[in-house]
Amino acid sequence: MFPENFMFGASMSGFQFEMGNPSAREEIDPNSDWFVWVRESENLVNGIVSGDMPENGAWYWNQYDKVHSLAVDFGMDVLRIGIEWSRIFPTSTKHIPIDSPNLLEELDKIASKSAVAHYRKIMENMKTKGLKVFVNLYHFSLPLWLHDPIAVHRGKQTDKMGWISDDIPIEFAKFAEYMAWKYCDIVDIWASMNEPHVVSQLGYFVINAGFPPAYFDPEWYVKSLKNEATAHNLAYDAIKKYTTNPVGIIYAFAWVDTVSPAQRDIFEDAMEMSNWRFMDMIKDKIDYIGVNYYSRMMIDRLPTVVKFGPFEMRWNSLTGYGQSCVEGGIALSGRPASDSGWEIYPEGLYKLLKAVSQRYRGIPLLVTENGISDEKDKYRPFYIISHLYAVEKAIEDGIDVRGYLHWSIIDNYEWPKGYTKRFGLAYTDFEKKVYVPRPSMYIFKEISEKRTTKHLIGYDPYNLINF
Amino acid sequence: MFPENFMFGASMSGFQFEMGNPSAREEIDPNSDWFVWVRESENLVNGIVSGDMPENGAWYWNQYDKVHSLAVDFGMDVLRIGIEWSRIFPTSTKHIPIDSPNLLEELDKIASKSAVAHYRKIMENMKTKGLKVFVNLYHFSLPLWLHDPIAVHRGKQTDKMGWISDDIPIEFAKFAEYMAWKYCDIVDIWASMNEPHVVSQLGYFVINAGFPPAYFDPEWYVKSLKNEATAHNLAYDAIKKYTTNPVGIIYAFAWVDTVSPAQRDIFEDAMEMSNWRFMDMIKDKIDYIGVNYYSRMMIDRLPTVVKFGPFEMRWNSLTGYGQSCVEGGIALSGRPASDSGWEIYPEGLYKLLKAVSQRYRGIPLLVTENGISDEKDKYRPFYIISHLYAVEKAIEDGIDVRGYLHWSIIDNYEWPKGYTKRFGLAYTDFEKKVYVPRPSMYIFKEISEKRTTKHLIGYDPYNLINF
Amino acid sequence: MFPENFMFGASMSGFQFEMGNPSAREEIDPNSDWFVWVRESENLVNGIVSGDMPENGAWYWNQYDKVHSLAVDFGMDVLRIGIEWSRIFPTSTKHIPIDSPNLLEELDKIASKSAVAHYRKIMENMKTKGLKVFVNLYHFSLPLWLHDPIAVHRGKQTDKMGWISDDIPIEFAKFAEYMAWKYCDIVDIWASMNEPHVVSQLGYFVINAGFPPAYFDPEWYVKSLKNEATAHNLAYDAIKKYTTNPVGIIYAFAWVDTVSPAQRDIFEDAMEMSNWRFMDMIKDKIDYIGVNYYSRMMIDRLPTVVKFGPFEMRWNSLTGYGQSCVEGGIALSGRPASDSGWEIYPEGLYKLLKAVSQRYRGIPLLVTENGISDEKDKYRPFYIISHLYAVEKAIEDGIDVRGYLHWSIIDNYEWPKGYTKRFGLAYTDFEKKVYVPRPSMYIFKEISEKRTTKHLIGYDPYNLINF
Amino acid sequence: MFPENFMFGASMSGFQFEMGNPSAREEIDPNSDWFVWVRESENLVNGIVSGDMPENGAWYWNQYDKVHSLAVDFGMDVLRIGIEWSRIFPTSTKHIPIDSPNLLEELDKIASKSAVAHYRKIMENMKTKGLKVFVNLYHFSLPLWLHDPIAVHRGKQTDKMGWISDDIPIEFAKFAEYMAWKYCDIVDIWASMNEPHVVSQLGYFVINAGFPPAYFDPEWYVKSLKNEATAHNLAYDAIKKYTTNPVGIIYAFAWVDTVSPAQRDIFEDAMEMSNWRFMDMIKDKIDYIGVNYYSRMMIDRLPTVVKFGPFEMRWNSLTGYGQSCVEGGIALSGRPASDSGWEIYPEGLYKLLKAVSQRYRGIPLLVTENGISDEKDKYRPFYIISHLYAVEKAIEDGIDVRGYLHWSIIDNYEWPKGYTKRFGLAYTDFEKKVYVPRPSMYIFKEISEKRTTKHLIGYDPYNLINF
Repeated sequence: MFPENFMFGASMSGFQFEMGNPSAREEIDPNSDWFVWVRESENLVNGIVSGDMPENGAWYWNQYDKVHSLAVDFGMDVLRIGIEWSRIFPTSTKHIPIDSPNLLEELDKIASKSAVAHYRKIMENMKTKGLKVFVNLYHFSLPLWLHDPIAVHRGKQTDKMGWISDDIPIEFAKFAEYMAWKYCDIVDIWASMNEPHVVSQLGYFVINAGFPPAYFDPEWYVKSLKNEATAHNLAYDAIKKYTTNPVGIIYAFAWVDTVSPAQRDIFEDAMEMSNWRFMDMIKDKIDYIGVNYYSRMMIDRLPTVVKFGPFEMRWNSLTGYGQSCVEGGIALSGRPASDSGWEIYPEGLYKLLKAVSQRYRGIPLLVTENGISDEKDKYRPFYIISHLYAVEKAIEDGIDVRGYLHWSIIDNYEWPKGYTKRFGLAYTDFEKKVYVPRPSMYIFKEISEKRTTKHLIGYDPYNLINF
Repeated sequence: MFPENFMFGASMSGFQFEMGNPSAREEIDPNSDWFVWVRESENLVNGIVSGDMPENGAWYWNQYDKVHSLAVDFGMDVLRIGIEWSRIFPTSTKHIPIDSPNLLEELDKIASKSAVAHYRKIMENMKTKGLKVFVNLYHFSLPLWLHDPIAVHRGKQTDKMGWISDDIPIEFAKFAEYMAWKYCDIVDIWASMNEPHVVSQLGYFVINAGFPPAYFDPEWYVKSLKNEATAHNLAYDAIKKYTTNPVGIIYAFAWVDTVSPAQRDIFEDAMEMSNWRFMDMIKDKIDYIGVNYYSRMMIDRLPTVVKFGPFEMRWNSLTGYGQSCVEGGIALSGRPASDSGWEIYPEGLYKLLKAVSQRYRGIPLLVTENGISDEKDKYRPFYIISHLYAVEKAIEDGIDVRGYLHWSIIDNYEWPKGYTKRFGLAYTDFEKKVYVPRPSMYIFKEISEKRTTKHLIGYDPYNLINF
Repeated sequence: MFPENFMFGASMSGFQFEMGNPSAREEIDPNSDWFVWVRESENLVNGIVSGDMPENGAWYWNQYDKVHSLAVDFGMDVLRIGIEWSRIFPTSTKHIPIDSPNLLEELDKIASKSAVAHYRKIMENMKTKGLKVFVNLYHFSLPLWLHDPIAVHRGKQTDKMGWISDDIPIEFAKFAEYMAWKYCDIVDIWASMNEPHVVSQLGYFVINAGFPPAYFDPEWYVKSLKNEATAHNLAYDAIKKYTTNPVGIIYAFAWVDTVSPAQRDIFEDAMEMSNWRFMDMIKDKIDYIGVNYYSRMMIDRLPTVVKFGPFEMRWNSLTGYGQSCVEGGIALSGRPASDSGWEIYPEGLYKLLKAVSQRYRGIPLLVTENGISDEKDKYRPFYIISHLYAVEKAIEDGIDVRGYLHWSIIDNYEWPKGYTKRFGLAYTDFEKKVYVPRPSMYIFKEISEKRTTKHLIGYDPYNLINF
Repeated sequence: MFPENFMFGASMSGFQFEMGNPSAREEIDPNSDWFVWVRESENLVNGIVSGDMPENGAWYWNQYDKVHSLAVDFGMDVLRIGIEWSRIFPTSTKHIPIDSPNLLEELDKIASKSAVAHYRKIMENMKTKGLKVFVNLYHFSLPLWLHDPIAVHRGKQTDKMGWISDDIPIEFAKFAEYMAWKYCDIVDIWASMNEPHVVSQLGYFVINAGFPPAYFDPEWYVKSLKNEATAHNLAYDAIKKYTTNPVGIIYAFAWVDTVSPAQRDIFEDAMEMSNWRFMDMIKDKIDYIGVNYYSRMMIDRLPTVVKFGPFEMRWNSLTGYGQSCVEGGIALSGRPASDSGWEIYPEGLYKLLKAVSQRYRGIPLLVTENGISDEKDKYRPFYIISHLYAVEKAIEDGIDVRGYLHWSIIDNYEWPKGYTKRFGLAYTDFEKKVYVPRPSMYIFKEISEKRTTKHLIGYDPYNLINF
């Protein structure tokens, strides 16, 4: 059984959900690196981005009321939204010193009044419907005044170096403090940022995933991680000045499997590199840990140690498992893969919750993302059952998991993949801006209502629930 | 919207559901042609039957209470069951003249008391739970004293010729009258028989489907159809002596599509051969028409007219469409096919309801079977939505459809295919005899509760709902 | 190296190659069981036969000169042809006693003069071109006066019982003696019959392969084998009265693999049942053994012993290996399968030649059939290399193999599969009656010229040559 | 019929064939951009290059005698080799003025004596065996002193800009003159360079093919093309000072198909962009045109005109055709695709020869590359037949084609794809350094011997030869 106060909900972000009306100029935010990145000719010519444009999206900016109603109708207690830094501060805040006695007033002068007001309206609407408000302050997209992804990508000199810049932690802290000042009365749960390791890894190391700036530099990979950690820690303190509500981080933890049980050393190395290195840097400044989980990583030992700048790699991750499967195919384990080619592996979530809680004892966990791109809803019903079963089992083992937020409530803009990868419980008609619950959404509701998965798990078409 | 008195339910049969405990000798019915057929060495050696045995089945004979509860929990108003002729009369009734003044008493002497009583217990349990009782008297399996399928298959002389025998209509009438006499107080809806045309077609014409007796004889195909019609007509009158409740027939109607719209003549020929020829023979003795629908039939004109005994075939049905697709594959139309290789084609149900109601004006319709073998529930959620949408739309067009019975509520014994083709809303664990609702069952419930599909049809992953 | 006198050649049969002009009535032979079988309505309606008709075939009857030239051009020394019993004796020979002093004269009166003359013309043409004449007297098709396949299939009483009849061995002996009398001056190598075990197995046991009479009866399976053996033994003595040239039999040996090496007992059982039982009956009446080999058989132990009439089956053959693969697919072993779904397994030929030679010491071997249905010639080049390597290796091991006859030189009529399965070294245009060498035919020629495969086997795209 | 003096042969290059012994330091050439590129960590981490290393290759440097023998054995008249600029001049030649009176002597001082000598030994070996010597001076790999591909890729300032440098045409002219001076007595056919447009397109425009420097800049794409043209023109004049033998260029012509015949304008635009623009720049300085052809390009009109720097793109090329198919799959046209995913489209070669000869009247053509990566030799036999048929037909139409050089005689290093894409007529065992003719090589020989494809084209498994 899920405890009475266990939260069911869904997660969203700003860039992927907000825009939807290409003629409504005032709704469009052209001031972020991703806005530029997805329309850059090099990326388009080479198919690195989809060609889909974010301004044709799900239109949450306008239709938040519909989305909130949907959430309530299907048994949700909480919704997580993102606030776009570039909407709040379309222009630089660098000239305002962090230690200015009038920091907030000065920031207020250059902040976008309409953006600040609009986000509040969205939150108020949630509250009216009885939904908890969960706000995250950074989700992949940076203001252009902080990051020129094209210049960095092409090796051009620029002072807009994104997470490589020395001053970005301070700027983020200012933004966080301003947000806390503005919304501390209405936000129930705060997060500083989403998946910082993904930003660094896909930005500077494994660069063919289509994430900006796609510039290979192992040193920068390390530096950006450190800056993100510093930014979080400063932001935590800044927010905490205004609220006692929980402030945490959202992290895409990797669950690592090795091809042989004898490879304990590379298991630990991979867990360290993917998870613990960053989390250890911020572990004293979090009230909860947000766990994002989609699939696992299968690794094997490399025949020889390979050096990349500061790294000695002793393993690599295998194609055919985890997030490296054929789209819509079958993983080498025999399990189905999603439209994104991600193996369905629910036990990874269970094992991860155990591992995270064991390492960071006393800090409560929240599943902040979990879901599947599955346009035809072939696998999502069972994906929900099996992953919520993993959470339920973890709770029964004594792990302190406080909630489960599905990614996501509606289809949205999947970064370089555009609109083809559909993660919604409700199908989104991007032309008519209509949301229709998929069959799986009724399963979500059933579990949320009955507070358990136990009556559902006898049906296990892939024999996955054996953990 | 479905009208208030519209019935939602599910259909079952005797042979496919009842048995389940191979050690319980008294529960096993070895006296039917199918019981012998599925364990015949020729069929086993050649893979014509699956090797699965019916006595390892879903065990409805014992667990009917669980099945009835499941039905109620998921919004069902009615369940259809089958009564096994060979259970009621394990030995021949031929020696008792139909015009005997003591017909029923004499039948009663040789009927199985325990079988008669057990079926009543099942029906009473349904009633207790508020379910309507729908009883069908013949569903594919004949008593061995009427049909020796091995002898007929091998061309051996026998007087147990099944539906070819001249005396079988009379025997069926006796059985029907006895049943009506026994159960007229408790049965709400009666059907004489299930899919008579399938029995004839797969028995004597297209004989490689693994149905007994698999003996090619176009003349017998015709003769058996006539005998089935006569049997129905006599049974109708016999039952009607005891009840005013509706008595009908259950028929697997084919919806025919032609490769070119100019082939109106072969369309009509195929509709006549598959549907109207039989139905016309019994149309004056039915209170309702039970419509079974799974997929369509795609036909094309043959280059030359081919003669088979009494037939001149001008068309044939095409592989890659309807029920001739690759199992689990994609039809040539681009639509998915079920685990049985049956194309998903909901508009066929809509068109069929229109065509049947137009030809037999004034006779109400019941969808008595509709479903999909889909072990992993990939397609069933949308199969239910789209086919119930077809029914809803037919009703809105003024067609008098009184109910929808899904095939089926639990997984069961799919004739020569055994247990591999799973049609249940609830998954059946054949070892533990446990039924677990699949995700699609919640969709069924949702529609039954809301009395409409309208809020669901915007989600249409295959663009099928365009009729 | 292949020895100097090692023969390279190809095999053909009568029914599959001769006809080709449907308007030339005199060329068509309607008097055999297969001629009737492939146009029977039951078989056509059920797709048991292809619908292709043998009279639209490769037309060897008329174009033998072209085929013989092709053989010579590509390095062949010998061609095997079949003589159609029903062409020589369109009507019964039963009324002529075997011990009649004028047996041959009386047979001569009712034999078809034109057929006898035409076959001689064919053989003379071969001789002129320097080809050895290899004649086989029975290849699947029986005269209708000996076998009514439809009556037997339907279980109807008939005295035309084919290989079940008590008198068929005697009739075959008469036919063989007559042929020897007519052609002893010109035939270099004689065979009594082709693949007797296949005739019995597919006729009376595993009956869904589309072979007549497709009547399941394990006793008949045994009886027909005995009759075939008796027929061979009588024929051997009859032919030997007229010639000292070698007389043998052509047998489709199975190479058996077991899923586990511990299954020696079922290996021996399967080898006994498939190979030795028949061969032991005739082993004293053969001057050579003709080995037909296409693929292997993979077997596993059955969970329980199953009884079929006189048999106790302890094993069955597995789908996904040998001749039970998906057409054009990949075997479970990872090896490619032919257009017929037959796994490519050259080591089976090597192992078989060893096993046969070991059991029947002193009797020379001839590979009388080996080939692949591969319309697009994807695998045939390597099929030839690898299987001829197997023969070469066997010879180097001391096995006395005298020749290799590929099946076949041109595409032909593949029994129930019709013209879709193409086994020719030369492609056959069945409309224009033109034969065009496929690329693989040049490989055949290369090996025949160089008398070795050694310079070719380093190229082994499937890593098959590891025996 | 191919004319008597028509040349059959094969093409090779330096970088892809020469190396093969990683311990033989003196044989390895580390001084080219490709040598660095294929071992750069960014490329390895991201799977942009295969990880295969060129020093494990086919070892032509050492085993040229074997390769030449193979060529002679299989009916070849000519072999094309490449000379590695970086082997001849491992260090810069920039300091030697082009107009120096002692240009050749000064170049000679810094040229690698051993490289110059070794290439001569290779050519002499060819001559000894009766093979014509065809030498190409530039094939993708540039000396590192001219091109730092990593710096350019990362946007770093460098004066080693490859084909973007203003001085590269002059340097190339010096190299060409030196080569002509050294080898004018032995080389029969000269080419300046191979596929200049590919170098520019994959280097600066469609940059995800893994070619250095993979830096998107449409202006550079144009500039590099111009520099290549200038380099060719200077080289032509330089070589012609020393020889009257033919000097030409090798160009990868695209054959363009449009989805609709009404798209004549974009057809001409694409032909102009892909073929004519460059060729027009050099058309007065060629004695023959070398045509490389593998597959076609299928294009469709873009919904709107897209601008990339200096370009207005009105069309794009379609996935599923030409070189954009699934590896080893089937093109959308139904034709098979090679291991590289390249559609088999022989009529493209025919159409191209016509188009090229029509535009550049009077200049003879040579097919300088044509082949298929097909490890298992499934398609190569027919690929050779059909493409040589295309050449034969073009000749019969009056086009002046002087020879056909297959790519290639042995498997080799396929640039970023490494050793997985095998284009050899002979299979290469990269461990044992052994070459074994594939079956298709016998087809090549057959055609070369008979001087025609006519007896082979009736076999056309994909119905491709209908032009």
